[in-house]
Amino acid sequence: MVILVDRKHLSELLRRVGIRAFLVELTEYIREDFARWPQFERIPRLASHSAQGVIELMPTADGRLYSFKFVNGHPGNPREGKLTVGAFGALADVATGYPLLVSEMTILTALRTAATSALAASLLARSDSRTHALIGTGAQAEFQALAFQAVLGVGRLRYFDIDGAAMSKLATNLAGSDLVLEPCESVEEALRGADIVTTATASKSRQRVITPDLVRPGMHINGIGGDCPGKTEIDPEVLKSARVFVEFEPQTRIEGDIQVLDPQFSVTELWQVVAGHVPGRRSSEEITVFDSVGFAVEDFSTLRYVYDKVRETGIGGRFEAIPDLADPKNLYGCLTT
Amino acid sequence: MVILVDRKHLSELLRRVGIRAFLVELTEYIREDFARWPQFERIPRLASHSAQGVIELMPTADGRLYSFKFVNGHPGNPREGKLTVGAFGALADVATGYPLLVSEMTILTALRTAATSALAASLLARSDSRTHALIGTGAQAEFQALAFQAVLGVGRLRYFDIDGAAMSKLATNLAGSDLVLEPCESVEEALRGADIVTTATASKSRQRVITPDLVRPGMHINGIGGDCPGKTEIDPEVLKSARVFVEFEPQTRIEGDIQVLDPQFSVTELWQVVAGHVPGRRSSEEITVFDSVGFAVEDFSTLRYVYDKVRETGIGGRFEAIPDLADPKNLYGCLTT
Repeated sequence: MVILVDRKHLSELLRRVGIRAFLVELTEYIREDFARWPQFERIPRLASHSAQGVIELMPTADGRLYSFKFVNGHPGNPREGKLTVGAFGALADVATGYPLLVSEMTILTALRTAATSALAASLLARSDSRTHALIGTGAQAEFQALAFQAVLGVGRLRYFDIDGAAMSKLATNLAGSDLVLEPCESVEEALRGADIVTTATASKSRQRVITPDLVRPGMHINGIGGDCPGKTEIDPEVLKSARVFVEFEPQTRIEGDIQVLDPQFSVTELWQVVAGHVPGRRSSEEITVFDSVGFAVEDFSTLRYVYDKVRETGIGGRFEAIPDLADPKNLYGCLTT
Repeated sequence: MVILVDRKHLSELLRRVGIRAFLVELTEYIREDFARWPQFERIPRLASHSAQGVIELMPTADGRLYSFKFVNGHPGNPREGKLTVGAFGALADVATGYPLLVSEMTILTALRTAATSALAASLLARSDSRTHALIGTGAQAEFQALAFQAVLGVGRLRYFDIDGAAMSKLATNLAGSDLVLEPCESVEEALRGADIVTTATASKSRQRVITPDLVRPGMHINGIGGDCPGKTEIDPEVLKSARVFVEFEPQTRIEGDIQVLDPQFSVTELWQVVAGHVPGRRSSEEITVFDSVGFAVEDFSTLRYVYDKVRETGIGGRFEAIPDLADPKNLYGCLTT
């Protein structure tokens, strides 16, 4: 029987495990899978475009497990009180082809994006980083703040959004955390004293949220909002002054902040650092950028982690997608039981 | 909230609607969609191959609705008491990208294959057809027999399988139907007096189940078991003597019975007949073949039909894949409710 995890099951799992422990453990699953990156089948994502948006299927497999994510991107959705991006996904057993888990991935995608950000920062940020500046306090914000706190011990959060209500929302949601919350009135103010800067803005255009005058030696920039064609956040001059790390180069050239740069601009795939082939941060002065757009392997790791946790805790529903037949030729017979 | 349909919900729906009415209505949904075939996005299926089998994603969309099916094919599964083919799928709203329905499709695939067979026969078999010969009484058999009875009024079923237990299984399952059941001891005996012949054998090789000496003028052959590379059932000479109809030519050239023929051999896509562009049967003497392998549009029609029926009947569970948020920026907030 396939295990089914919906929003309520996931909330229950997060309460049971604790969101910080969940983020720490998820980061380790992603680290494990990035370390064996060449084992993954890189199947191109399948997109169906319409006037209103896009629906994509993102599969991958490692020879033992197969996963896919269904995800949409519809910029007009918030006007109708709907999320721009929603997702669900499945994990299957390669040996039998049987699905094992069907899960919500709307919230899981925010968690895996934050865990991937923390993984990158664990290799690219200065190890004495204590202050995180968060630009854009929308749907991703709390997850990012908690991941950096949980995985890296970054306990001071300076934040800014052009939407004051979104800033209040973050303050309310994180009031119970032991993060030191410092609301700021501008990007410039938020970046003052920051070791790690996350850009997670929603504007669907080419922005320059992070300009060269705001960047100081030794900063690590975690760019998660520049994630589709025509949507960027980091000034090209900042990118050129930094070492830039990406998930999967051909995809990031199209979707990431580096889309504004010459295609010859040199970048490093993060898995190479995780696997020990390329050094991460090389000095306390270096500026590093993780130009994150999200990749199927992260969803794979997430489904793999959730599958392990729901089996451990017994949380989750059941989805009888494939009948359990005494006689495989008697499919019709299962209709009467 | 996404509607969830598993095996039990589908069984309940089939009891409520009646399997014959279900097959008749489903055939009409497929007919409607085949009639507007050019409106469908023909996205290539995405396959992930392994030593044990294949896992595929089969998407399509018509500008208003989007569907995909997850389906595996693992020939060794029956040795472990598992089905060779299992499936589930989803229907989504193109305007918002939100999923509407997630459903089991293992049984639905058998139902849609039978409904598609009946649709083809309604255009290709003689209108005075009364006798159906069924070669191979495995997992698909009862669905095929009931679809021809329900849609075309073909009430006499002659059947043969090399596995006597599979023949008994069919007799038991269809005992309550008003089909006249005539078990036969050979393919030749089963085909005696048959107007429509269905081949649904399981052998994973190039078979010649239907040879020229068994075929009489006016027969319609419904070939559903020759559906992947290396697996065919109909003698090439039979195909050459017939008008051959397919779902989607590029796919059937690889997967269907016509894989044994020259790529130049002329075939007609069934939708052309449904849409009225090409005549179906032209005389009472003509031999017709529907070389069926299954296509994403049939799954689309099936999910569209099931979605309409579960909304009408209230049958089905719920799957909260995308949270319903008062504030789309407050994704984190839904974890605490």
